[in-house]
Amino acid sequence: MTILHLDDLAPGQVYELGRRTLGRDEIVAFARDWDPQPFHLDETAAAASIYGGLIASGWHTVCVFMRLYADGLLARAAAMGSPGVDELRWLRPVRPGDTLAARLEVLEVRPSRSKPDRGILRARAVTLNQHGEEVLSFVATLFFKRRPAATEETDP
Amino acid sequence: MTILHLDDLAPGQVYELGRRTLGRDEIVAFARDWDPQPFHLDETAAAASIYGGLIASGWHTVCVFMRLYADGLLARAAAMGSPGVDELRWLRPVRPGDTLAARLEVLEVRPSRSKPDRGILRARAVTLNQHGEEVLSFVATLFFKRRPAATEETDP
Repeated sequence: MTILHLDDLAPGQVYELGRRTLGRDEIVAFARDWDPQPFHLDETAAAASIYGGLIASGWHTVCVFMRLYADGLLARAAAMGSPGVDELRWLRPVRPGDTLAARLEVLEVRPSRSKPDRGILRARAVTLNQHGEEVLSFVATLFFKRRPAATEETDP
Repeated sequence: MTILHLDDLAPGQVYELGRRTLGRDEIVAFARDWDPQPFHLDETAAAASIYGGLIASGWHTVCVFMRLYADGLLARAAAMGSPGVDELRWLRPVRPGDTLAARLEVLEVRPSRSKPDRGILRARAVTLNQHGEEVLSFVATLFFKRRPAATEETDP
């Protein structure tokens, strides 16, 4: 299996990262641990809220993206972590039974000037529901290693 | 107990939201579920990484903030969820045994023009370690209800 390095990534590339269905029990369990608000925990309270029914914590949706990204891309990539993300938006509620699909769209690839063995990727992280509607979007900054050969070319 | 509404919040207010210590087992368990990268899972692999040892998933740190915010403020607030966050930065690694403290700094309070029963809060979410160093920062946009009395004043 070829390991993805910064040199393999280019603006315009789109990586489809897989799918996962969120059940009611998983939504409630995540919320109990991390985001215990009534509209994530309890059907009756959620029905009376502006959401009209139980919805997943937005951080749960982010974590589902992260897991699909880890399995679908990081597992075969020379990745070095991330300093942060921008423009994170929860665009639509995620409800019990929704099937989420994760996608990474490469925006920008930039070798590091100070550290020739690595570089910076900017990419849009998107999560869609089973109707093809975006439920989550954010712009991630990601560190990737360069191929040893590529390093030698720029640093002979 | 007085429930916090938008009308109780003002720029410059700082809410201290409590503390939580992250153990090694919790760090690994979270990473197994949501962010299975070697430097979150395995001490030996982590020692060989750029982080020099096991670190918590950045999303774990975010979730710890969220839980402290839920217990420390949302539990006594008329909150209605969030459309998103900006400028999320993982500023320093979080390591096993670190004690994290969460803080919310109110930046801006704006009543909704179209919906007089609610408004928008912008606030900086900060997480610090036991040395007082920031490990996480982001700017959250949050919906809060207005007090019924306040609503009547602006919408007689």
